Amino acid sequence: MQDQERFIWPHKDLLDVTQLSREQVRHLLDLAGQFHEINQRPVKKVPTLKGKTVVLFFAEPSTRTKTSFDMAGKRLSADTFSLAKSGSSLVKGESLKDTALTLQAMSPDVIVIRHTSSGAAQFLAERLECAVVNAGDGWHAHPTQALLDAFSLNRAWNGQFEGKTLLILGDIAHSRVARSNVHLLTRMGARVRLCAPRTLLPAGADTWPVEIFDNLNKAVQGVDAVMALRLQLERQQAGLLPDLREYASRYCLNLNHMQHAAPGARVLHPGPMNRGVEISSALADAGQSLVLDQVASGVATRMAILFLHATRKDTGER
Amino acid sequence: MQDQERFIWPHKDLLDVTQLSREQVRHLLDLAGQFHEINQRPVKKVPTLKGKTVVLFFAEPSTRTKTSFDMAGKRLSADTFSLAKSGSSLVKGESLKDTALTLQAMSPDVIVIRHTSSGAAQFLAERLECAVVNAGDGWHAHPTQALLDAFSLNRAWNGQFEGKTLLILGDIAHSRVARSNVHLLTRMGARVRLCAPRTLLPAGADTWPVEIFDNLNKAVQGVDAVMALRLQLERQQAGLLPDLREYASRYCLNLNHMQHAAPGARVLHPGPMNRGVEISSALADAGQSLVLDQVASGVATRMAILFLHATRKDTGER
Amino acid sequence: MQDQERFIWPHKDLLDVTQLSREQVRHLLDLAGQFHEINQRPVKKVPTLKGKTVVLFFAEPSTRTKTSFDMAGKRLSADTFSLAKSGSSLVKGESLKDTALTLQAMSPDVIVIRHTSSGAAQFLAERLECAVVNAGDGWHAHPTQALLDAFSLNRAWNGQFEGKTLLILGDIAHSRVARSNVHLLTRMGARVRLCAPRTLLPAGADTWPVEIFDNLNKAVQGVDAVMALRLQLERQQAGLLPDLREYASRYCLNLNHMQHAAPGARVLHPGPMNRGVEISSALADAGQSLVLDQVASGVATRMAILFLHATRKDTGER
Repeated sequence: MQDQERFIWPHKDLLDVTQLSREQVRHLLDLAGQFHEINQRPVKKVPTLKGKTVVLFFAEPSTRTKTSFDMAGKRLSADTFSLAKSGSSLVKGESLKDTALTLQAMSPDVIVIRHTSSGAAQFLAERLECAVVNAGDGWHAHPTQALLDAFSLNRAWNGQFEGKTLLILGDIAHSRVARSNVHLLTRMGARVRLCAPRTLLPAGADTWPVEIFDNLNKAVQGVDAVMALRLQLERQQAGLLPDLREYASRYCLNLNHMQHAAPGARVLHPGPMNRGVEISSALADAGQSLVLDQVASGVATRMAILFLHATRKDTGER
Repeated sequence: MQDQERFIWPHKDLLDVTQLSREQVRHLLDLAGQFHEINQRPVKKVPTLKGKTVVLFFAEPSTRTKTSFDMAGKRLSADTFSLAKSGSSLVKGESLKDTALTLQAMSPDVIVIRHTSSGAAQFLAERLECAVVNAGDGWHAHPTQALLDAFSLNRAWNGQFEGKTLLILGDIAHSRVARSNVHLLTRMGARVRLCAPRTLLPAGADTWPVEIFDNLNKAVQGVDAVMALRLQLERQQAGLLPDLREYASRYCLNLNHMQHAAPGARVLHPGPMNRGVEISSALADAGQSLVLDQVASGVATRMAILFLHATRKDTGER
Repeated sequence: MQDQERFIWPHKDLLDVTQLSREQVRHLLDLAGQFHEINQRPVKKVPTLKGKTVVLFFAEPSTRTKTSFDMAGKRLSADTFSLAKSGSSLVKGESLKDTALTLQAMSPDVIVIRHTSSGAAQFLAERLECAVVNAGDGWHAHPTQALLDAFSLNRAWNGQFEGKTLLILGDIAHSRVARSNVHLLTRMGARVRLCAPRTLLPAGADTWPVEIFDNLNKAVQGVDAVMALRLQLERQQAGLLPDLREYASRYCLNLNHMQHAAPGARVLHPGPMNRGVEISSALADAGQSLVLDQVASGVATRMAILFLHATRKDTGER
């Protein structure tokens, strides 16, 4: 870790990928690479964050992301504390601000927050002295997901984002994952395409630095990776989808589509997958799928994120 | 911690503050002061309770108190285990006694229990060999809250309880916090006043060593601190309150009231606050508010409590 | 632990006791004995599994068993992670296979699974590289319970299973505990009797290597231990029981029955007990009851199980 300590991380909080320079992303991915290697060892633990306190405050349920952060914290020897909203008298009848100030009074080093309201992480960050990491806020941003996706792609693409094209496919409108990936990938020099039915495109998508398609066969031509997004099945009840079967016939990514992609193109999905809706089962399990690699990348990337934000003040004060 | 080990803590359990002598309280607060200092360090962890097992058995939900104990345990390097009542097959169809004996068979050093029934902690303490810490039992007692309040007041009052006056305000009838604070503060030499509408005073309050007021403007005259209690909003449905707005107009503590208190008087609240009901928002955030200090004090005080009860046998056996 | 490391544990997974040879069971019980001794020390912790990751995936609720595994893991210094099915977006809309692959991608060393479906543990074991420990699958098997029962009996019987007779009493039909105990005890050389009303005997019980009784007074004659099983009270609604009071009058084990057992005979129950239904309250608390000893044995036995399965690859690769 010696080289890492000489790099001063300038951010108290991780709220959105838009705050990160290309050099900072590179630094974070390199650090994640070191932690990824540690996760393959028989003894998957380093004493780096011993005596640090990480609070996982998930006001929106997500076992997958919470467990990923929990492992990241414990493998760095931090103490982790999980707070859920449901049934919590900490939160009941108490404003988000009071809950946050209460948590801060317990002297945590990092608060990881997931919340249904866009802007919740920033609201906390402005009021707390400790680091705040956004683990997904409403439809706004999901920076740690975008960073882990970048970590997976960086490895698959041998460290080269420039000249590469990523296609993001599916429910872009309701996806903080899509928003954060568009920002991060273009920042790193890749091009991004979107493919979705009109009803699942966000209002201002035409102002984004992307190419937009509604035909998957055209969208997939020559791309270096496709990221299929999870379709919340309740979108259909909301009238945004005509029929799940018809949706799948047009937008479910399969092995045939990938024939038109660039040679060696990879497939991503943030999980959990609806097999046969967003992605065919055969493709999900095929060699070009990075789906499980993304999960492993998640632990390593979150170790880097926790490390940078929990030790920033220590380094600064030296 | 060397000095501490020479003091023999005589109590197997912490059930109520009534069991503590003034000297024992002083010892506990001093020890908490040492832990409070540790909680400000970059590395907030000491190996003191390594290899000790602390079970957090919360049969009544309380994220705030449970997290406080959890942090206290982990910062002392103990292993902590949380058991909740809801959905627990440990408890379903099993008596409290059998649950407790089962827990004890797993060789914990301390069981922290919160329970809706007054006397639950004592029931366990009489049957178990391990230490039992009462984290609130019915309307009976909440000794760790009273001790953390005393820790906050001790610091605010420069170690001097004698000659000081605390006013406890609000729903005294249903408050184990009030009961435990009356006992502890008078034991330490302070005077206590109560202020509440008649319907929220407990039956025997006139036999307590306190002065009773129903007018807040008179009650607050010259006091050195005011503790506003949380009002369970369901009291209104129970017919104990005429109207929430009228209640607040008479009993919601605000900056004006504090003008009549002694210079430098402080404000406490066990949290979570109903701002605008028990305490005005401006006062809650004002400089004289100890509300967040109480939360920090909670972790330090519970570290002292866990330390004293988890190591008592070790010391005794030497 | 030096002697232990020379013994190569041949099993990746623990799915059922049927996979274990008598020598392997002996080795596991010896190892559990060492851990049992550690659990009596003031410092109940060894660094054996430091840096190992144990996932507790309980798709069927069980605080008792989960806490036992959690303590076992932490006392060996492993990091433990609890996943529950309810409300988990990891699991919602995701197949067991995808959940398992996701968990595996986080590089755990052991996944402990409890599931309502018979065969769930085996299904995972065939698909995952990490060790899978069956903590109860449907009505199929509960090997860790049988092993802890064997650990308790081994100590009570001075290491001698041969020539001993165990009576298993109650709802055999719906009991994975009964199935696993019949296998393990006969494997170790003991004889097993079953006693239950016809409606609570499994279909193929007459092909098992056991003697079957429906009269408890006859069944208990000369036995060296009786294991009373928990009666799920919903069996009565299902029409399998005429009346709880009548059931108890015929099958509730009490001190009188034990007069007919062999001198020094012991009583077991996997817990939680329905006192007065499967076992009389007086007998549950009597000296010959091993009920709490079983709980303590559970932690020690699961420490041995986690140790053997988490370190197997390390040893093998040397």
